[in-house]
Amino acid sequence: MKEKLWHGRFREATNQLVESYTASIRFDQRLYRYDIGGSMAHCRMLARQGLLNDDEEDALVQGLSEILREIEHGTFIFDDAQEDVHMAIEQRLIEKVGEVGEKLHTGRSRNDQVALDLRLFLKDEIKGTGEDLRELQHTLVNQAKANLEVIMPGFTHMQHAQPVLFSHHLMAYYEMLKRDLQRLENCMARVNVSPLGSAALAGTSLPIDSGVTAELLDFPAVSRNSIDAVSDRDFIIEFVAAAALIMMHLSRMCEELILWSSTEFGYLELSETFCTGSSIMPQKKNPDVPELVRGKSGRVYGHLMSLLTMMKGLPLAYNRDLQEDKEPLFDTIDTVRQSLKILARLWEHVSLNRERLEEMAAAGYSMATDLAEYLVARGMPFRQAHQIVGKIVRYCLEQGQDLQETTLDEFRGFTKAIAEDVFDVLDLKKSVDSRRSAGGTSSQQVREAISLAERELST
Amino acid sequence: MKEKLWHGRFREATNQLVESYTASIRFDQRLYRYDIGGSMAHCRMLARQGLLNDDEEDALVQGLSEILREIEHGTFIFDDAQEDVHMAIEQRLIEKVGEVGEKLHTGRSRNDQVALDLRLFLKDEIKGTGEDLRELQHTLVNQAKANLEVIMPGFTHMQHAQPVLFSHHLMAYYEMLKRDLQRLENCMARVNVSPLGSAALAGTSLPIDSGVTAELLDFPAVSRNSIDAVSDRDFIIEFVAAAALIMMHLSRMCEELILWSSTEFGYLELSETFCTGSSIMPQKKNPDVPELVRGKSGRVYGHLMSLLTMMKGLPLAYNRDLQEDKEPLFDTIDTVRQSLKILARLWEHVSLNRERLEEMAAAGYSMATDLAEYLVARGMPFRQAHQIVGKIVRYCLEQGQDLQETTLDEFRGFTKAIAEDVFDVLDLKKSVDSRRSAGGTSSQQVREAISLAERELST
Amino acid sequence: MKEKLWHGRFREATNQLVESYTASIRFDQRLYRYDIGGSMAHCRMLARQGLLNDDEEDALVQGLSEILREIEHGTFIFDDAQEDVHMAIEQRLIEKVGEVGEKLHTGRSRNDQVALDLRLFLKDEIKGTGEDLRELQHTLVNQAKANLEVIMPGFTHMQHAQPVLFSHHLMAYYEMLKRDLQRLENCMARVNVSPLGSAALAGTSLPIDSGVTAELLDFPAVSRNSIDAVSDRDFIIEFVAAAALIMMHLSRMCEELILWSSTEFGYLELSETFCTGSSIMPQKKNPDVPELVRGKSGRVYGHLMSLLTMMKGLPLAYNRDLQEDKEPLFDTIDTVRQSLKILARLWEHVSLNRERLEEMAAAGYSMATDLAEYLVARGMPFRQAHQIVGKIVRYCLEQGQDLQETTLDEFRGFTKAIAEDVFDVLDLKKSVDSRRSAGGTSSQQVREAISLAERELST
Amino acid sequence: MKEKLWHGRFREATNQLVESYTASIRFDQRLYRYDIGGSMAHCRMLARQGLLNDDEEDALVQGLSEILREIEHGTFIFDDAQEDVHMAIEQRLIEKVGEVGEKLHTGRSRNDQVALDLRLFLKDEIKGTGEDLRELQHTLVNQAKANLEVIMPGFTHMQHAQPVLFSHHLMAYYEMLKRDLQRLENCMARVNVSPLGSAALAGTSLPIDSGVTAELLDFPAVSRNSIDAVSDRDFIIEFVAAAALIMMHLSRMCEELILWSSTEFGYLELSETFCTGSSIMPQKKNPDVPELVRGKSGRVYGHLMSLLTMMKGLPLAYNRDLQEDKEPLFDTIDTVRQSLKILARLWEHVSLNRERLEEMAAAGYSMATDLAEYLVARGMPFRQAHQIVGKIVRYCLEQGQDLQETTLDEFRGFTKAIAEDVFDVLDLKKSVDSRRSAGGTSSQQVREAISLAERELST
Repeated sequence: MKEKLWHGRFREATNQLVESYTASIRFDQRLYRYDIGGSMAHCRMLARQGLLNDDEEDALVQGLSEILREIEHGTFIFDDAQEDVHMAIEQRLIEKVGEVGEKLHTGRSRNDQVALDLRLFLKDEIKGTGEDLRELQHTLVNQAKANLEVIMPGFTHMQHAQPVLFSHHLMAYYEMLKRDLQRLENCMARVNVSPLGSAALAGTSLPIDSGVTAELLDFPAVSRNSIDAVSDRDFIIEFVAAAALIMMHLSRMCEELILWSSTEFGYLELSETFCTGSSIMPQKKNPDVPELVRGKSGRVYGHLMSLLTMMKGLPLAYNRDLQEDKEPLFDTIDTVRQSLKILARLWEHVSLNRERLEEMAAAGYSMATDLAEYLVARGMPFRQAHQIVGKIVRYCLEQGQDLQETTLDEFRGFTKAIAEDVFDVLDLKKSVDSRRSAGGTSSQQVREAISLAERELST
Repeated sequence: MKEKLWHGRFREATNQLVESYTASIRFDQRLYRYDIGGSMAHCRMLARQGLLNDDEEDALVQGLSEILREIEHGTFIFDDAQEDVHMAIEQRLIEKVGEVGEKLHTGRSRNDQVALDLRLFLKDEIKGTGEDLRELQHTLVNQAKANLEVIMPGFTHMQHAQPVLFSHHLMAYYEMLKRDLQRLENCMARVNVSPLGSAALAGTSLPIDSGVTAELLDFPAVSRNSIDAVSDRDFIIEFVAAAALIMMHLSRMCEELILWSSTEFGYLELSETFCTGSSIMPQKKNPDVPELVRGKSGRVYGHLMSLLTMMKGLPLAYNRDLQEDKEPLFDTIDTVRQSLKILARLWEHVSLNRERLEEMAAAGYSMATDLAEYLVARGMPFRQAHQIVGKIVRYCLEQGQDLQETTLDEFRGFTKAIAEDVFDVLDLKKSVDSRRSAGGTSSQQVREAISLAERELST
Repeated sequence: MKEKLWHGRFREATNQLVESYTASIRFDQRLYRYDIGGSMAHCRMLARQGLLNDDEEDALVQGLSEILREIEHGTFIFDDAQEDVHMAIEQRLIEKVGEVGEKLHTGRSRNDQVALDLRLFLKDEIKGTGEDLRELQHTLVNQAKANLEVIMPGFTHMQHAQPVLFSHHLMAYYEMLKRDLQRLENCMARVNVSPLGSAALAGTSLPIDSGVTAELLDFPAVSRNSIDAVSDRDFIIEFVAAAALIMMHLSRMCEELILWSSTEFGYLELSETFCTGSSIMPQKKNPDVPELVRGKSGRVYGHLMSLLTMMKGLPLAYNRDLQEDKEPLFDTIDTVRQSLKILARLWEHVSLNRERLEEMAAAGYSMATDLAEYLVARGMPFRQAHQIVGKIVRYCLEQGQDLQETTLDEFRGFTKAIAEDVFDVLDLKKSVDSRRSAGGTSSQQVREAISLAERELST
Repeated sequence: MKEKLWHGRFREATNQLVESYTASIRFDQRLYRYDIGGSMAHCRMLARQGLLNDDEEDALVQGLSEILREIEHGTFIFDDAQEDVHMAIEQRLIEKVGEVGEKLHTGRSRNDQVALDLRLFLKDEIKGTGEDLRELQHTLVNQAKANLEVIMPGFTHMQHAQPVLFSHHLMAYYEMLKRDLQRLENCMARVNVSPLGSAALAGTSLPIDSGVTAELLDFPAVSRNSIDAVSDRDFIIEFVAAAALIMMHLSRMCEELILWSSTEFGYLELSETFCTGSSIMPQKKNPDVPELVRGKSGRVYGHLMSLLTMMKGLPLAYNRDLQEDKEPLFDTIDTVRQSLKILARLWEHVSLNRERLEEMAAAGYSMATDLAEYLVARGMPFRQAHQIVGKIVRYCLEQGQDLQETTLDEFRGFTKAIAEDVFDVLDLKKSVDSRRSAGGTSSQQVREAISLAERELST
């Protein structure tokens, strides 16, 4: 085992148990590309500032490129004794390029370096998550467009409330995902700040130029306080909080997919290729994917809680506790992105049972509100209309009949304000199309919402 | 007990236990101002759309004003049988203005109404929280400015790392709070959308105009999907997540206040007026305020978890579970705002122990990095410099002496690269001022940070 | 305002904002009965140890009884300046009985006093929660007994799996609640320890006898380490964790109640007296109670997280952060107990739709496993049987027929192992009754489970 | 790729993305030993019940042993297409032993099988965690015994409260860990129940005997309700909740280790072999291990929240969401066990700074309570004594002197109740030894606590 690069003041070697307990290399090696990219930019800056000469710069950048290749070809061996990805790469560089390698860490600490790597990594992943969100939005909009004629029961309290367009329901998810996208964009503003130059916690006396590295690494801003820069993990927590909201949205969508593909609902069928069977029950076709997505919401909620707990009450500046930021972040990204991707595919293969949806849309007295609004349009105060229609519903329940099956005479037994034209109102399609208020479920409104969404997705 | 306004279709009265279990009126009455304001705007819109005539509009608006006055004068009696603030006010309105009161709820449901009330309420509270954040920032900047000469040990891993300006440390908190402000602003974009017009979940067939109410209530936008509008609580969760980060920041600040006012640290003293004593130990002066703020971080974390759990797996649209959004939101706001306010006051009355801070700033070999950078500036690769200084520290530890007490001869026993000018580097003030990299701790950098902060706070 | 009892060493009065921020009296007054009971026991012990004479003991105990009466009659005024219930009562006692009142706090601190109060309170509430759990178990067993003939579809993955007895399904909840009871009993062992005598953190030099107070207050044990005794809140967190599991169980039960009372399922109907209506949709009858219970699971999860966060990283011994233990505990108790009580009532008024349950029990090829086990009983390896029945199901799907509708010839087209007696297996009642393995759903097994439960509940 | 064992009713192959998203084999392979052991017991039972003949039993058990060996020798290849550890082993068994392998899954489902595996696994890990807890207790008791003379300041609110024995402080942690042990034992009662025989959710019609497998696998009980048995994850959540309390205790201990090894406290020094250095600051020796343990508390809290969220609102019986139970459980076990082990080692290598501890023990007027109790012992009511000593402390603060430095005359200026013997009370050792109340810090009490602990640990 090689001596640690920081070992000067120590007399004794690190305990093996400690080495394995404290090493982050098993998971932080995932950052290698960003660590190397950051080091290259750092070398270029050091050269520009006269802290390296041209040959030194070339040797270092060249050595780093080779290490990148070694890692990508799987010939680089990471082991616990190297502690972390930063030390592993620096040690290898010194092995490869000799003494000049010992200049790499000039004016830099692992404290600002790891913050840099995480920020570079997260910038990419936020972009990627944004694309995944848009992909799922895209599929939803396509389904909404393809099924514009389908009417389904709208629910509140899991009870039939009013008929709505299936497409309108799907577009509700489009809106949720749109807010998710906005949150990611907002979060990016906090991620996209270069911490390099903060060194351990207090900056450095060497004549580095943080602006140069920031520019080379495409950061529009440099952190304004070095103590904050190395203690801050807001940008990670904010991202994970946004991810928790995404998973919450997906858990709702998946709950519906599971319910809708039950025998009782029978609203839609998932493709066999997205289901699995049972080891004991030969007939089973289970909606495993939506179940897992729903379950994985807990995973991301848990990571959010981990990170908030980790930061609670930590004095400034860097503390080793912060190392615990990586695994929850990585797992959050993997969970969210895979879940988005698989749902985008799954929605493409869903078959709607239109007859069933329409049949149910009319069940459960779902047009009672239309009837009340019919009375209001004829001048009756809403509360009276609500009261009278409530009584009509009670009567129908007792008769075991639907609103649509009620005769004009029966209706007029409750109020003379009802006339022959009431049956226009008790028509599914007309009922839906009448709800033209902003954001309402009428075909026209939904068609416009789809057009607007298509425009948003094409930019 | 009066009959419920929705009781038409029911044959039996609500069970008393159910009434008390389901009523939200004990806590949602806090929204009364927004509920009434929202109803007034709704009436104006109904009149403009011809759904009310002028007399009706006047009667309703007048009645609502009177109810507002009754509530503010404490003559309005809320009770569980009224279920919630919306029903309580509507019932009272009908009592006061008669049949026309039954027109208030035209084209509206409690589902969009409560979303409206919460959004109006939260808009105000976000502004208020922003002011509280700025107030605390202001106090921190004042303290930073007033103590610009004070040097303290900068810590990493709770060990002395490098000397820093006390003001630089305070300005790290300024930066955290600035991000908190940004998050609130971003969140506002999602809060500031009017859901009115979404009705129960699907819009309405009555000719309302959501744009008018939005304008009257100062919303720049109207929600684009009615199902989403009544099912969405993102805006609350996003706010509570931002609040959790604020409390996390405050818990770190308070941990430091507690440590710094311990006998062992002795860095500062809290004012007696911000401390309490012990029921048994006569000498005690306890930092209760920072302890409570630290503890209350758990409170807000818990609320965040409550809300995320509540939403997990909920099918669309409105479900009664959503009623559980209010208490965590209200308590989050109270906790965060009171904590910010009290810390702003507390910081005004803190006395620093400058001698102790400075003495400690020089202890623990805190200038070892300066020595290493001195060697780098003289051409030695950083890793060698680090190694040699590590050995010097080990030597000093064995001798029981400080770096500053080491003689030139002793230094040169380790490397000839050290010359007489090394003692310039081992000077506290020079050490601090040398760290001029972006965001660094030099007096000049900190002075600029303070100026910039003052400009930001004055806008 | 009176001076604080601990004010000797202070020169300045407490800031008003601080007083209000730090006071716990608004919520800890709920402990008054335990605080007074504890103080009475403390006085008796002090007298027995010669630290009070008989007159003093009488005066103090008498004074405390009067205060108890004052509080219960609502004539005692609590205000923030008193800080907490302990100080409020001690101050009032001194007012009432004069100088001897100043002896009450002998050999005691608020640190052990509040731990005592909480433990006394929680002992009572654990017993109460246990009774509430048993009450709900009782209702479930009654329903299970009353509906022993009802067959329903058993679900996995929300898909029909195999027919089961409705009573068997209910008894699954009986088992969950039984584990909840066990956890409360286990928790009691940690709650039922007297901390009195630990004083501030280190015990006292006065000759008190902790055994006496423990006995008077019915504690079987005294805490063994005074520092631990005042820093420990395990007993609260353990209770809240057990409560979180209770709420999790109830959230599952309520999810089912909500689904089963939907139009699509139509399995059961909740009593009108347990439902509420809609402010806009006249036909609605919403399952608000189960929705709220489900939502309130988040509330208790959140409290658990609050408490764990509060304790994270707290140095010993007592810290003011601990004051944040009360509100989450109180709200957890109220939430869990009310939810248990209301569900016990709600289940009494549920009407099952037996025809619908039975019809659905036979749908979805739910007897495919019976068919596979039929083949195994005839010597076919299970995997082959599973494979063949899978193919039969696929065939039936394509034919649009049910297993029961398949002819013997069709069956024998897949395997000659199927004979005329196969139709015995494809009978709902026989299918259910054949599953006689331990814990299985056969009538006989369920009848035994009910008997055993009745015996358990009668002890 | 081989066909899935459940594929009979499917026409299409599983989508690749779905296969990778749903496969649990990457993590559940950790259960292989328990899966094979469970299957062996299952085979023995099937044979005893006549469902296998002797040759078949031998072939299956033999095949399973060989697979166990293959896995332990690393020659068994797990891949995603096998879905999970159960299917991987069953497929391999069929490959090895042919058609008889297809009889393994008789009367069993993966639903009861995975519950069995998890319970067998957790039984072992609970025992292991118990041993780790006892190991740490052992080290603490040894340190307490070895340092019985050391006096330190006892803290409340991070302020000096009263002098205590260092050993007494350590024994507080002994008590916390003892409660942790009790919770694990209690939890074991819920874990130690065999679910085998519950099959998919409803038991089986085949004549299996659950009692036999339970006995072979050393379970004292069989689950009483098959639906509950496959839906229940209480036992995992209860374990993780107990683990969260362990980590909370460790986070407190580590906070103290970190503070105590700071320059300001200087109470103790961690061994170099348990610390690491800095990449930039040559002098640093950081307490990484306690920092990481403290940070990892968040990890386990997060897992608890994940699991609770996963279960929220899940209808019965098995749902695929439950697959998300494994990773949090495994990581919890690894985190807790490694943290316990490393702290047991770390405490063995801690060096106390006795002089510093004793010096600090006397600082901060820590014997003020002794002085008040001195006055009480002379008949003064406690509140008066507290008031007078408070004034004495204020006087000393103004004079800049310690209590011990105050003259008798000065004391008597406050109260004539103070006599020459007051200085006996103001002696550190006497102060500590006077606190003889139950659980107090006197040497005698602590010595007894240590003896009792040693007896507990030797059983």
